[in-house]
Amino acid sequence: MLDHITTAAKQASRQWAVLSSERKNHALHAMAEALWDFRAQILAANELDYQAARFASYTEAKLDRLFVNDKRIQDMAEGLRQVATLKDPIGETMETIERPNGLKIVKVRVPMGVIAIIYESRPNVTVDAAGLALKTGNAVILRGGKEAINTNIALTKILRGAILQCGITPDGLQIIENITHESVDELLRARGSIDLIIPRGGAGLIQHVVEHSLVPVIETGVGNCHVYVDEAADLAKAMDIIMNAKTQRPSVCNAIETVLVHDAVAKEFLPMMANQLIAKNVQLRVCERSLSLLKVADIKDMTQVQLANEFDYETEFLDLILAVRVVRDLQEAMDHIARYGTLHSEAIVTENEDTAHTFLMEVDAAAVYHNASTRFTDGFEFGFGAEIGISTQKLHARGPMGLRELTSYKYLVYGSGQVRS
Amino acid sequence: MLDHITTAAKQASRQWAVLSSERKNHALHAMAEALWDFRAQILAANELDYQAARFASYTEAKLDRLFVNDKRIQDMAEGLRQVATLKDPIGETMETIERPNGLKIVKVRVPMGVIAIIYESRPNVTVDAAGLALKTGNAVILRGGKEAINTNIALTKILRGAILQCGITPDGLQIIENITHESVDELLRARGSIDLIIPRGGAGLIQHVVEHSLVPVIETGVGNCHVYVDEAADLAKAMDIIMNAKTQRPSVCNAIETVLVHDAVAKEFLPMMANQLIAKNVQLRVCERSLSLLKVADIKDMTQVQLANEFDYETEFLDLILAVRVVRDLQEAMDHIARYGTLHSEAIVTENEDTAHTFLMEVDAAAVYHNASTRFTDGFEFGFGAEIGISTQKLHARGPMGLRELTSYKYLVYGSGQVRS
Repeated sequence: MLDHITTAAKQASRQWAVLSSERKNHALHAMAEALWDFRAQILAANELDYQAARFASYTEAKLDRLFVNDKRIQDMAEGLRQVATLKDPIGETMETIERPNGLKIVKVRVPMGVIAIIYESRPNVTVDAAGLALKTGNAVILRGGKEAINTNIALTKILRGAILQCGITPDGLQIIENITHESVDELLRARGSIDLIIPRGGAGLIQHVVEHSLVPVIETGVGNCHVYVDEAADLAKAMDIIMNAKTQRPSVCNAIETVLVHDAVAKEFLPMMANQLIAKNVQLRVCERSLSLLKVADIKDMTQVQLANEFDYETEFLDLILAVRVVRDLQEAMDHIARYGTLHSEAIVTENEDTAHTFLMEVDAAAVYHNASTRFTDGFEFGFGAEIGISTQKLHARGPMGLRELTSYKYLVYGSGQVRS
Repeated sequence: MLDHITTAAKQASRQWAVLSSERKNHALHAMAEALWDFRAQILAANELDYQAARFASYTEAKLDRLFVNDKRIQDMAEGLRQVATLKDPIGETMETIERPNGLKIVKVRVPMGVIAIIYESRPNVTVDAAGLALKTGNAVILRGGKEAINTNIALTKILRGAILQCGITPDGLQIIENITHESVDELLRARGSIDLIIPRGGAGLIQHVVEHSLVPVIETGVGNCHVYVDEAADLAKAMDIIMNAKTQRPSVCNAIETVLVHDAVAKEFLPMMANQLIAKNVQLRVCERSLSLLKVADIKDMTQVQLANEFDYETEFLDLILAVRVVRDLQEAMDHIARYGTLHSEAIVTENEDTAHTFLMEVDAAAVYHNASTRFTDGFEFGFGAEIGISTQKLHARGPMGLRELTSYKYLVYGSGQVRS
């Protein structure tokens, strides 16, 4: 049923793959301009989605994510202009190999081909993904959420119009209008037509995609992140980092969910930490040893403190809840992270360089921090100038994915008649 | 049922990941020596497999692949010593980013973690895979074919012994002794315990793995490769390249299956090509236009020539069979390759640099050749010093996979208390 979409995207991907940087950047500017010129269409479409969502009693947070206004359209357009300023990765020579038989082998960066992105609510993902795909010469098939379908269709229509006006086939940008489970599953089976699927959304969506896809997938998202406060930690730094990583924006994947505290500093650190977190409305789920160190008299509000169970160590709360565990030593902290971590972001706070080195080398995660907040795991904070998601797998891309992570490579082999003996 | 194996491998992978190059190379030499010292055990085990295979009436070719003797044990040992000489990719700094807020971000190469390799018959894969895995700090779970199981168990036992004697946990090298379909399927479901699965074998095996795996897979193998003879081709070069790419070793994935010939040179080239190929016992499956150019009087043995159908263009013959098609121009050649190719290796023969450039840029394949045989798509021929397979997907690794392709990366982030605002 989606055959015409995947076929058109595949066909267009051959043209998009060889567009010059100039033509791509020109189109990105035209797309930005078109969003603003046709904003009335976007707002009208968004009004339909918004009213339907209100009628369906969406939470304020969900309504806000869905909502589009002039300012948000400006931001989307600005995002496209920003992508135009980034260096084009396509065609970059990654390596040159000269062989004794005279063959010259050049490894060059090329697009993936056709990328499908399956995502939920926020309409700006539609514009971001279209811009990043065009910049990297990849055709893209977008499958957004039901709740934003009118907005997404309007955005795509405007962007396709701008691309066409630049003399580029708009078929490299496709949106699936039929928002059913079947349309997702059809994408997942489109091996050969689609080169890569990136799911962006909740754990349920990601799990479904990973389990059913025949197309290669980059798993994004789940971050069960830890801060380990070492015996040699500067406790003021530890406090700042924990407060930032837990409370600055608790709903995101690079926020922390568990603090591990070395036994030697637990007695001093834990009551101080508990009070500051409780003052910010954070609920604590603590181990028995921690609980024994939190004296009722010292703690502002003991109702915010509960005994932790196995479930608390496993859970990505994405909320003002923090698990706390006292560990005997660095090794126990690293064992805990190896067991419960999701390979996303992990931090150690210590003034001991050797301990930090061991932690950074041995902890298996996309980003491992020494004396900094895990909240920096982000394409913009890493200086990539863009982000399509944060990978938690080890194949192909790890951590924040920018332009380069949307590319593959090929080998160009220059000969003069060489044959193999 | 394989839980103890995956758990042991995961556990060991943490130790193997941080081994120094010196210790790994020392172990590789010890493994090589042990193979020779205990060759009597290998030969005895291989005798069991070989007799069983003879009893099961295996073809001579299959029996030969299975067979091990002193010389082949020496070759396996030499392969391990060769891997010891290669540069260790682990720990390599790939990039350093300094951020305005003072964060220093270092992208370093790390192992994948636990790799499972599912393969058929040849016992040397057992030794190769063990050596490449250890060198790259990856634990490896081997699942070889039933027909070589005694040999594979003997080899693994000897290699594990040598690893243990070097003070390294041998649990990073695991072999599955229970050769059932269930043991493959259990590996495919072991998401979280296994980081990567590489299937090596026939199309059926690869298809099964791709369709059922929840673990990320690198697809290897199928090569429906083409040579395009352009109107500006040096026909002598074209002849040499086609003869080499078709007949030097027809059973491998980088051999060609179809020749595309520009109409302007078809009349001159096709009869000459046909006669040379027929002299080497190659059967031709030709398009109608080609057939009209092959006059019975000019061709040595017209019984070797048949009319091609769609199936012939799709098929990886892996045999002395070649499809031949006359095309109108470069574009038709590229369209044919886009339709029937498997993204493996494609070649153009031409003296026109512009035409070559267009072909190299626009054809989507792991390796695209100008005036050279496709048979060079190989880790050793590319100078990697090793090869674990040839990837035909675009995610993570493309073309020949050496040591680097068995690695991932992580970001080490050095701070002084930075938090995000």
